[in-house]
Formats: sequence, structure tokens, C-alpha cells
Amino acid sequence: MRPPLDDIALDTVFREARTHYGFRPEPIGEATLRQLYDLLKWGPTSMNCQPARYVFVASEEGKSRLMPALSEGNRDKSHEAPVTVIVAVDTRFYEHMPKVFPSSPNARDRFAANPDKASDTAWRNGTLQGAYLILAARMLGLDAGPMSGFDNAMVDEEFFSDGRYKSNFLVNLGVGGPDSRRPRGARLAFEEVAEVV
Amino acid sequence: MRPPLDDIALDTVFREARTHYGFRPEPIGEATLRQLYDLLKWGPTSMNCQPARYVFVASEEGKSRLMPALSEGNRDKSHEAPVTVIVAVDTRFYEHMPKVFPSSPNARDRFAANPDKASDTAWRNGTLQGAYLILAARMLGLDAGPMSGFDNAMVDEEFFSDGRYKSNFLVNLGVGGPDSRRPRGARLAFEEVAEVV
Repeated sequence: MRPPLDDIALDTVFREARTHYGFRPEPIGEATLRQLYDLLKWGPTSMNCQPARYVFVASEEGKSRLMPALSEGNRDKSHEAPVTVIVAVDTRFYEHMPKVFPSSPNARDRFAANPDKASDTAWRNGTLQGAYLILAARMLGLDAGPMSGFDNAMVDEEFFSDGRYKSNFLVNLGVGGPDSRRPRGARLAFEEVAEVV
Repeated sequence: MRPPLDDIALDTVFREARTHYGFRPEPIGEATLRQLYDLLKWGPTSMNCQPARYVFVASEEGKSRLMPALSEGNRDKSHEAPVTVIVAVDTRFYEHMPKVFPSSPNARDRFAANPDKASDTAWRNGTLQGAYLILAARMLGLDAGPMSGFDNAMVDEEFFSDGRYKSNFLVNLGVGGPDSRRPRGARLAFEEVAEVV
């Protein structure tokens, strides 16, 4: 085994990282969002299928389109966050298969012919990529606040009216304030969730 | 913003990390698997629900139960890997809500009364946790090979016969050999997957 990464890395990504409920008013420029994508894009997906899509909602106008779909408890912090990302999936992600997985020339047609398989693949891998986004943001010095308390149908109608993309979950990005965290929730013990066979 | 983590961290987790298709025969002890869980468990889930379950298949006997369910192309490398993790979801994860999210005393009953919401929550968050496992393994010096090419129903029948847990995907863990990687697949460009509004 390689040696583990140092404590700063383990703390930043997992051990000391926290979901934030309030953000400082420092904007996040497009250059940072591109850096974020250029890091998370290397995370693995099945057959390199990369079904996640990202709408970075950064402007006042964009926020005003998003706010009505959020559950009340998610509005203030999302209005405050410099960026709220809509992590979505492309239901026709397989149209890119000839480019992203050229070693399997039939992949596109096989997904097109099997909507259940395509949907499972889109949601599983699009969700993995959403997790990569959360952890990549932390690695780049941002705080993340993922949320699923919103009306997916409203977001889809407002942002993805042609029906091809579907919203999965949201992630606030910014620099959290010192008082913007809640007490840490209990984690299940190894014995409750794991087995070695 | 905090400064980003150093190049070693960014390379290890994302930029130079690769899916491996072959592994050295060095065993992974239970202490390392516990370390892995003690890192990934801090990753965020909705309402701290933690629906993922993990079967670490490490023994010859365990592997022989798993192999028949794998697609042919996944067998040799999974037999060789010191550990293959079955990342599963607990369909009744909400029974732990009183412990993991005590601030919402009705959470357990609300999930129990809404099977669609419970299922969405289990799969979305269980998949996020699977991604945390992949990246946490890399941070600890392991290589990971995630796979979805297997028969979920066969795995569920063999390992989760009471029907409560459902397999999501598999992850080989070990130290990859130098020739065990394939050429890196193309990633979609920012313009193809992202929008700033």
C-alpha cells in the first residue's frame, strides 16, 4: 500500500469537514467552477459514462428562479450561498458513448434499447459524480452544503423544460461562517453497517 | 477560501487515480477496513441517514459465493483483488433515524409511511456513500476498481436472503499492479456538461 495522505487531507475531506448552513458573501468566479469540474471529472463512472450535468446557479436572477422550489428550511442558506449547484442527470447520456467509451461501439444502441438499464446507470453514476463534486469542492478550499429538500419537478420545469435532464440533488458552495454548522450527527458503528466474509 | 490541498492529494484522489483491473496478492486486514469505514462514515448524507451497507468479501469462501454473479469480464480481477466490497443499501435504513437524526422525532415514521421517498433516499444516499468509499480508499493508499457488471438479484439472494438489503455496486480494493490500468477514457468538456446561470 502507498502511505495514506496526511492529516490535513483526511481532515479537510472527511474528518473535520462539515455541512454548512450559512455562507460568507464572497463570490465564486467561473474560473473556480471550471477548476472544480476539472478535478471531479476524473472520478470513475461505469463505462466512463459521465451522466451528471451541473447548473451553477450564481446570479440573483438564477437564484430567484430556484428559490420557489426549495423547502422553506433550505431557502435562506441557499440564497446566501455564492453558488447553488443543481446536480442533474442527462437521461440520454448514452449519446456520448461513442466518444467516451469507443472500445464498445454498440454501447449507445444497447442503452437506447434498454430504458431501465439506462435509467439505473444514469442515476447511479450521476449520484457518484455528485459525491465527487462535494469532496472535490472541499479539496479546493470550499465548503459544501448538499440538500435534497426541494421540489424536483419544479426545478426540472424551470431549468430543464425539454425533459432531457432531471434534477438529482442540490449543493450549496461557498465559505461557511464559523457559526454555520450544526452539532455533528452520530455515525453508525462498523458493526451496524459492515461485515467481513 | 481556504487554500486547496496539495498536488499529492489532488493527484491521489482524482487526477492520477485510476481504476485497476489487476491487483497484487497483498491481503487487506480488518484493521484497514475499519480505518476505511472510520474515514468514509463522515461523508454527508441527507438527514444523516447513512443507508449504505458494506460486505467486505475477503475470504476464498466469500469469493466463491460472489463469483457466479459477476459478468465474465469482471471475474479474474475480482478473484485476484484482496477484497471485493458489496456496497448495498438498507431498505429499512429509517429504523436508525431516532439515533442518527434525533432532532426530527417523526422521521422514522414518515419514511416508513412513504416507500417511494424511502427508496429514493436510500439509493441516492447509499450511492453517495459508495463514492465516499472509493475516494476514502484512495486517500488511505489503496486502489479501487468499482464495477456494476454483475447480477444484482443473484448477489442479493446469496448474501441478503431476507430481502432487507439490496446490492448497489461492487468495488475491488487492493494495490493495483503497474500494468493493470487501461488507457484513460476521454472526459466531457465543461461546456458539454455545465452551465453558469
